[in-house]
Amino acid sequence: MGNLFTMVTVRADYEQGALVILDQTQLPNQEVYLALKTAEEIWEAIYSLKVRGAPAIGVAAAYGISVCMQKVVVAGFEEFYRKFVKIKAYLASSRPTAVNLFMALDRMEVRLLRHQKEDVKAWKQALREEAEAIRAEDAGACRRIGEWGLSLLKPGMGLLTHCNAGHLAVSEYGTALAPIYLGQERGYGFSVFADETRPLLQGARLTAFELQKAGVDVTLICDNMASSVMKQGRVQAVLVGCDRVAANGDTANKIGTSGVAVLAKYYGIPFYVLGPISTIDLGCPAGEQIQIEERAHEEVTEKWYTRRMAPERVNVYNPAFDVTSADLITAIITEKGIAYPPFEETLREWKMKDILT
Amino acid sequence: MGNLFTMVTVRADYEQGALVILDQTQLPNQEVYLALKTAEEIWEAIYSLKVRGAPAIGVAAAYGISVCMQKVVVAGFEEFYRKFVKIKAYLASSRPTAVNLFMALDRMEVRLLRHQKEDVKAWKQALREEAEAIRAEDAGACRRIGEWGLSLLKPGMGLLTHCNAGHLAVSEYGTALAPIYLGQERGYGFSVFADETRPLLQGARLTAFELQKAGVDVTLICDNMASSVMKQGRVQAVLVGCDRVAANGDTANKIGTSGVAVLAKYYGIPFYVLGPISTIDLGCPAGEQIQIEERAHEEVTEKWYTRRMAPERVNVYNPAFDVTSADLITAIITEKGIAYPPFEETLREWKMKDILT
Repeated sequence: MGNLFTMVTVRADYEQGALVILDQTQLPNQEVYLALKTAEEIWEAIYSLKVRGAPAIGVAAAYGISVCMQKVVVAGFEEFYRKFVKIKAYLASSRPTAVNLFMALDRMEVRLLRHQKEDVKAWKQALREEAEAIRAEDAGACRRIGEWGLSLLKPGMGLLTHCNAGHLAVSEYGTALAPIYLGQERGYGFSVFADETRPLLQGARLTAFELQKAGVDVTLICDNMASSVMKQGRVQAVLVGCDRVAANGDTANKIGTSGVAVLAKYYGIPFYVLGPISTIDLGCPAGEQIQIEERAHEEVTEKWYTRRMAPERVNVYNPAFDVTSADLITAIITEKGIAYPPFEETLREWKMKDILT
Repeated sequence: MGNLFTMVTVRADYEQGALVILDQTQLPNQEVYLALKTAEEIWEAIYSLKVRGAPAIGVAAAYGISVCMQKVVVAGFEEFYRKFVKIKAYLASSRPTAVNLFMALDRMEVRLLRHQKEDVKAWKQALREEAEAIRAEDAGACRRIGEWGLSLLKPGMGLLTHCNAGHLAVSEYGTALAPIYLGQERGYGFSVFADETRPLLQGARLTAFELQKAGVDVTLICDNMASSVMKQGRVQAVLVGCDRVAANGDTANKIGTSGVAVLAKYYGIPFYVLGPISTIDLGCPAGEQIQIEERAHEEVTEKWYTRRMAPERVNVYNPAFDVTSADLITAIITEKGIAYPPFEETLREWKMKDILT
């Protein structure tokens, strides 16, 4: 990895007794690191999106509960465990829909329970190790996603991405941005277009920021300019992340992703979805079953602005995600490999193997 | 037209000796009318986009020079004409690429020259009449565009539009919005989605504002949500304006239009381009010949915002327009009628007739 990443977005500082995070709400204007020493501070940081991106939230919760538990002084396991369960439930309430948050906290609990016959030193050590394992596995998965993804790309390509599925959302390489970072390390010389991604501007604030920081040639565009750059032949592949992949390959991701996929199909550009195996949900047969969160109108009409940019009381439709039909997706890439259409069988096979190991 | 439009965006108030415009830079927050009494004030209002939209600029310039010339006290035609030519050249310099501005001012000059044998009263009267004729022809053309457009629509349809080609850009009905207003008068019950249209937000600030004001059921969306509402079956036709139509039907319009056209094609939704015959440029064989203006990076990274929303020194690509290929356009609608593909012959026929009349 060398010195590609000069920021560590989430880490545990046991000497300070703190979870240290890069405050993403202050990007791209200021790089502020926060040392969070209490469960309340950690809860607030997750709740208010100071740390965001499903995998990053999982890692933050794991490190967070580990940091909190190091300070506990107790007589026996029962009391230690009671305190753990209390903090776990509290942190889990910070983002009620974040699967990675629950999965990470569950893993921490299982690990702790396995060591209950030992002493307080061992319990604390187990939590530190498990949090580190979660982070390392996450980073390893991202790296493998990056390797698979990079195998589909050629030096000098123009790439386009939407929203942020990079270093800031995930440990180290990210998912959609992982092939870009690996390519950067290996001198591929990609030029990347980052959709600004309205209304929350994750592309402008985060993707453009982290790619620029890593020395990648990145150009910011408004979402409605993607067609123009594709038409000009400046994009040879689209890379996006995913929030949830249905059994048939239909993929929910940040609002606007399905539009980019339609454009890519029209202009004959491969459209790749990249994410960890954990986002594949075999319980969901197809995209129609994925419920789409609608968010506050103010995000569209007022947020970020010096003054209101739309008339008072105007109707607004503000879905946070959309579903890209499997037939628009060239390949789905996880740490397990590359799935081509029809996706169903490969996704099921991967998921079964994942559960068994 | 009845009481659909409660705002008059551009008018001459000869009693006050002023060109009165609705200041579009203050929309949607405030409806402020400005009474512009000098050529300098009129120039500044056009330059700073207080009045915008190609036809509206033409009407403003015509009324503007008429208002200025009413105040001139001179001995003979030569002096009157010299003053006219000076103001004409000055106003023409306010928006150097606005064809309607030059066309309107040229018409005013021709009309004045036709009356040079008469007296100062007649010269002033001729200018008032010509300005009024320009406005009335513009309004008539919009109404005819609206009628042709409406003939393609059915009551209860969901419609989508991009940018602003409505009442605020053109006299009365606008172009792309003309069928919507006519439908509104006739109880068609359309529901309209307005793309916000980054980076300048004409959809949010102007289209949503004027449609809401006229009682039309309008819903504001971010540009990247168009795919989502189309996929949900909520859009039965797309209506957009045009800045320039090439001889083969390729159409330059606000950035993002070509992306909407690709989406409409994919989802099987008719895509209609509406505009006055004056925007058809037979001298331009195809879209590749249309040069696209690139605008300041700050429009994407800073404008409207309380703070910068992208990293310092990031590359930005900010084209003001894009070109929609003729093969994505279902029909082109002008005051002359409806052209279907291949467009070339019909466009040429219309244009020839227009020049001959």
